[in-house]
Amino acid sequence: MRLLLIHSDHIEYEARKKTKLAEEAAVMQDMLDEALTVFCAVESADEENMDDAVRQAVAEIRSTAGQLNVANIMIYPYAHLSSDLASPEAAVGALKGIEEALAADEGLTVKRAPFGWYKAFTLSCKGHPLSELSRTIVPGAAETAAKKEIEH
Amino acid sequence: MRLLLIHSDHIEYEARKKTKLAEEAAVMQDMLDEALTVFCAVESADEENMDDAVRQAVAEIRSTAGQLNVANIMIYPYAHLSSDLASPEAAVGALKGIEEALAADEGLTVKRAPFGWYKAFTLSCKGHPLSELSRTIVPGAAETAAKKEIEH
Ligand SMILES: [Mg+2]
Repeated sequence: MRLLLIHSDHIEYEARKKTKLAEEAAVMQDMLDEALTVFCAVESADEENMDDAVRQAVAEIRSTAGQLNVANIMIYPYAHLSSDLASPEAAVGALKGIEEALAADEGLTVKRAPFGWYKAFTLSCKGHPLSELSRTIVPGAAETAAKKEIEH
Repeated sequence: MRLLLIHSDHIEYEARKKTKLAEEAAVMQDMLDEALTVFCAVESADEENMDDAVRQAVAEIRSTAGQLNVANIMIYPYAHLSSDLASPEAAVGALKGIEEALAADEGLTVKRAPFGWYKAFTLSCKGHPLSELSRTIVPGAAETAAKKEIEH
């Protein structure tokens, strides 16, 4: 799983048009201020142990939100972060799993943009050194395989 | 080279803090409306034939801008699109090469965000089916290796 975490003054989206993979019964338009936006690509390797991939993703997001003192989290599916994607069914399951686990935390507000829709969005990134972080999660690994802070 | 092309109502950035790779003598703050924002990660494989990688990237950007009828282009370095980056010196050279080639086009306005700075940014994506495209460029290959339109 690939995550790109952006400490955001503002994130908003509006679902505009279905792809053939469109998730039904999702929230078509929403926004958050002072949020951690989590762009997420669920990968085929995650399907070997999706529970662990979700567990690691939740731990990473929770840790980053704590470090940044952020209470609002927007989960945003983003296929472009990987060239080896999971099946759409597996991806939606993982994204919902991440959402539900975080939403159970006291004090966190969690929203999730729908999978499989063309979406308009507006995003503001704060620009401090920890405001853009990427993570690569490998299920079954003891720790996140790669951590990288943006340097350019 | 990895490109993520976003058809944008608006893109603006402000360089906030240097990393140890910071490019000097760059434009610290700028914006464009009705633009193609080109997030770009120059990869180590590009160093085998940087002229060709730049040539292919310019062709892709020019083609996409034409298809979308966009006259404004923002080149934006984005390390998070790849886990196998080129050297900073090679990356800056490639980004400048892309900028200069496109700027020579009649009717295109081209700006480039600085490499190696922590930057605040605000981006609006239009959300139509061609408003988010990713490209993987392999130097020496006859054509772009992989084209992918976002599906979720
Ligand atoms: Mg020009």
